[in-house]
Amino acid sequence: MSERINRRVLLQSRPAGALEERHFRLVETPAPAAGAGEILVRTLYLSLDPYMRIRVGAARSYAPPAAPGAVMVGGIVGRVIESNLAAFAPGDVVEGRLGWQDFAIAAAGDDLTRVDPALAPVSTALGVLGMTGLTAYFGLLEVGRPRPGDTVVLSAAAGAVGSVAGQIARIMGCRVVGIAGGARKTRYLTDELGFDAAIDYRSGAPLGEALNAACPDGVDVYFDNVGGAVSDAVLDRLARGARVVVCGDISQYDLGRPELGPRVQGKLMAAWASMQAFNVFQFRDRHDGARRRLAAWLAAGRLTCREHVVDGLENAPRALIGLLRGENFGKLIVRVAGSGEIENG
Amino acid sequence: MSERINRRVLLQSRPAGALEERHFRLVETPAPAAGAGEILVRTLYLSLDPYMRIRVGAARSYAPPAAPGAVMVGGIVGRVIESNLAAFAPGDVVEGRLGWQDFAIAAAGDDLTRVDPALAPVSTALGVLGMTGLTAYFGLLEVGRPRPGDTVVLSAAAGAVGSVAGQIARIMGCRVVGIAGGARKTRYLTDELGFDAAIDYRSGAPLGEALNAACPDGVDVYFDNVGGAVSDAVLDRLARGARVVVCGDISQYDLGRPELGPRVQGKLMAAWASMQAFNVFQFRDRHDGARRRLAAWLAAGRLTCREHVVDGLENAPRALIGLLRGENFGKLIVRVAGSGEIENG
Repeated sequence: MSERINRRVLLQSRPAGALEERHFRLVETPAPAAGAGEILVRTLYLSLDPYMRIRVGAARSYAPPAAPGAVMVGGIVGRVIESNLAAFAPGDVVEGRLGWQDFAIAAAGDDLTRVDPALAPVSTALGVLGMTGLTAYFGLLEVGRPRPGDTVVLSAAAGAVGSVAGQIARIMGCRVVGIAGGARKTRYLTDELGFDAAIDYRSGAPLGEALNAACPDGVDVYFDNVGGAVSDAVLDRLARGARVVVCGDISQYDLGRPELGPRVQGKLMAAWASMQAFNVFQFRDRHDGARRRLAAWLAAGRLTCREHVVDGLENAPRALIGLLRGENFGKLIVRVAGSGEIENG
Repeated sequence: MSERINRRVLLQSRPAGALEERHFRLVETPAPAAGAGEILVRTLYLSLDPYMRIRVGAARSYAPPAAPGAVMVGGIVGRVIESNLAAFAPGDVVEGRLGWQDFAIAAAGDDLTRVDPALAPVSTALGVLGMTGLTAYFGLLEVGRPRPGDTVVLSAAAGAVGSVAGQIARIMGCRVVGIAGGARKTRYLTDELGFDAAIDYRSGAPLGEALNAACPDGVDVYFDNVGGAVSDAVLDRLARGARVVVCGDISQYDLGRPELGPRVQGKLMAAWASMQAFNVFQFRDRHDGARRRLAAWLAAGRLTCREHVVDGLENAPRALIGLLRGENFGKLIVRVAGSGEIENG
């Protein structure tokens, strides 16, 4: 039964500065079997997300750091192939935080979500109908509290979270301005996602002037995924009562030592503004309802999503490193199983 | 009628760095007379507050900067001595933003508040029952949202706003930790105001260690009046879901150029925390109710306040400069009229 090989990517060591492939190690072990009260899950897709860089660091965070020598943390979509739990049957598709590996054992308390393959391709359970979509949904609606006519600016706007948050802002009747790196991404925002304006922060043109042109009445909601110099420019343009949604800080994750920047307190005072961080799990009891609403927008064509698929678990470290450099375009996922396995069910 | 002399302190020029006496000029003009629809007010007390340093600067703010050559902006308590308005009679005591001068003309739209001398000494209309008390009240209760048992840390805790906010936190059942400069102020906080702990940031001991000792479970609410390095240390110790009330940023006001500091976004993310600036005028329609509640606490001895009184309008510039250096102890006010005039009514 267990002649299958389980490839697992371990965290080898903590990066002090930029994350590199040497911080990971691929090992092969025999695949486990489901014991009493357990299921065995075959990983189909692995999600790669910026928060992973926080987890492999040693800095103070909302969760304990990932442990060197352990399987790297991450959300996956997989198929149940053995089950000793009444709630799951072989063939079921589930989403859960089972890590960077071909096979994983899960038990009843492991916070698995059942995925309905009839609703949308199962990979969307890692993106628009999963953690990143829910992060966009609750961050924008609950923390950003957009009103019709508000100017909503998003950084990393072509990323998994930013692209969904921007489209929700558009659905809410806001003026939507996306910041992204490169003309291909900014064209995508305006031409395919219907943003009102997009700013290429890599173009070499002064970001402040581009923001002034795109946001003549200032910024009511800033949905921030990047922090750093991009955010410095946006925070100088907050409108009275602005809400800053601190969703990510990706410009800072790979720095060897914290960067200094202009202090924000005076900027908030000048605008009577707020800045709030959050975590999607704060809204856990409302995830199902949000997922249904996102799925309805998807089905109606009001929301579109783009996946950036990398093939092979062995390529996950390099893909995560690229994500931290802004090389992805859409939700970054790794196809772990062969396409035949994925379609079969 | 108008043989009275009106001494007026004008803003002479904008400071580029530290505020100095040369940035002000005292002039004497004949006192005005009340025209149709106007009242003439004799200033009794002038309030000195940190926000004035923002108003004399040229930086982006929530209000237009004060104009060089004009009477310096500021709140006063005064007595109506001539009235051509049905709402006011000679002898009435009023509070309003009438500036640094002996006499002022006001009209119906000038946002005057009637002061009841039976409630408390009229100078409290500039402090605990006025702008600073209301700022403490709404900042702590509406922005900080303290729950019983929360650890509430306040900077400039012996100041006009901090001392009231800390006492309200104590009334709400919180653990209250004040940060102030000098042993005289920290003793005042613990011995007279009933704070649970007080930290002298000028003692030379590491602030982080003192905070660790005073806040073993982290900081749930940080009521910040100072910004800068003091706040950097507090922001590293936020508890899950913490609220940072950005009330003031006094460490930065007198700097010639903005200071760089550690970025806050990652600190907020680690704690799922928020940081919010506000202005007391956002809550204008609830000021009367808040003032009644503060007055009841005062009358019951649950709230005490300390005034730092400077005599003479001509000393106002020097007193404001001292305020920016932390030299005051309690609410700083200038007695503009002679004590005989103040008691007469």
